[in-house]
Amino acid sequence: MRIKLTVSYDGTDYCGWQVQPNGISVQSVLEEAIEKITGEKVKVTGSGRTDAGVHALGQVADFYTEKDNIPPENFAAALNTVLPDNVSVIKSERAADDFNSRKCAKKKTYRYLLYLSAVKLPLYERYAVQIDKNVNINKMREVSKVFIGTHDFKCFNASGGGAKTTVRTVYNIEIAEKDCMLSVSVTGSGFLYNMVRIMVGTLLKAGQGKLSAEDAEKMLISGKRSDGGNTLPAKGLCLMSVEYE
Amino acid sequence: MRIKLTVSYDGTDYCGWQVQPNGISVQSVLEEAIEKITGEKVKVTGSGRTDAGVHALGQVADFYTEKDNIPPENFAAALNTVLPDNVSVIKSERAADDFNSRKCAKKKTYRYLLYLSAVKLPLYERYAVQIDKNVNINKMREVSKVFIGTHDFKCFNASGGGAKTTVRTVYNIEIAEKDCMLSVSVTGSGFLYNMVRIMVGTLLKAGQGKLSAEDAEKMLISGKRSDGGNTLPAKGLCLMSVEYE
Repeated sequence: MRIKLTVSYDGTDYCGWQVQPNGISVQSVLEEAIEKITGEKVKVTGSGRTDAGVHALGQVADFYTEKDNIPPENFAAALNTVLPDNVSVIKSERAADDFNSRKCAKKKTYRYLLYLSAVKLPLYERYAVQIDKNVNINKMREVSKVFIGTHDFKCFNASGGGAKTTVRTVYNIEIAEKDCMLSVSVTGSGFLYNMVRIMVGTLLKAGQGKLSAEDAEKMLISGKRSDGGNTLPAKGLCLMSVEYE
Repeated sequence: MRIKLTVSYDGTDYCGWQVQPNGISVQSVLEEAIEKITGEKVKVTGSGRTDAGVHALGQVADFYTEKDNIPPENFAAALNTVLPDNVSVIKSERAADDFNSRKCAKKKTYRYLLYLSAVKLPLYERYAVQIDKNVNINKMREVSKVFIGTHDFKCFNASGGGAKTTVRTVYNIEIAEKDCMLSVSVTGSGFLYNMVRIMVGTLLKAGQGKLSAEDAEKMLISGKRSDGGNTLPAKGLCLMSVEYE
């Protein structure tokens, strides 16, 4: 049977989701845990590859097991007994035989956390990126509207991304502020390599008064990465949820 | 001149505030940073000793320097250039010559974070402690009222605490819930060794239906530690602020 897992991890100490020649990946840690529980060497498929240092609250993954005698919902607790503290299976359930976490994904939501402070705050440093207090959030919201919809996001495609098409649909961008924490949540059909980190870097540039909505529109048309903001650090990014039909 | 520092730190990798024979303390890291900036070997006094693993958002410390030519408010930025990422000086200011962070402290506020989840959540694990969802927050609030006021808190005094008197005043206990995060903020005149961690453990026991307000009152009268809840782990505790006159 095919098992669907909802997985959360602190990505700080990982080389990313995908198995890599050097460094420990979340995927390999899950595959080892499954082998410890079932005795089977399986391949775990994730909804997408999160980069080194990127976190997840609701990554989705799947694998096939011959152990039909284990109730699907019990895999979560069983795997958590052997997983390290920085990876946890929040939920396990039976999926259709042809379910594929990556191919069947319809929507993903990523959240980027920024904190507004003149000095570094150690308690925020692990999951958020410090920015100067002088940022205009309404400007960020205004420019974010330019990115909603189906567009060619070539301008947000980092070199190294091997996507066939750079057209994606962004359904929603929500910018919320609480105390000194600023969160930018982006929901889309899928994302190009580093797309969220560059997009939020571009919104930040807008918030700093260095980029207008017109500039953002021109970026989409020109497809030129150079017009955008910086690629923000991995640690501020978290894969919140993946939706299926 | 005497300098007052407001300090934040992630206590995970420290043996606590105070210099210890083994392990690195926050105090020693600050003293080394001050030496790098001023060339002076100073003794930094903190408002209190936070235990190994306890965090701080607003610890207060002070030291004496002969460098009267450095504007007091500049120490923060200067020290932050040499401090590690897990310790940060939020503010530096000149204090009265007889100011002593510990002796002059009037009120302290600690916050304890618990998260309600059936499974471990890696993104919360560093600063909060997982508890079962079946906790009655109103019961916790009800029992917390018993502890407000000036009492002999002998029942919350862990062995090893060398306080002359176990009488303390608790001004306020605020229990707030947001999403799955439960925070217990305790403001008091001062705290006995492990007092907040035992107090919150006792409130948790109340929330689990295993301790009533009457039981709590009896604890205060008997002074018996054995009647209370567990001493909760250090990582959930954070020194939020210290107030002076």
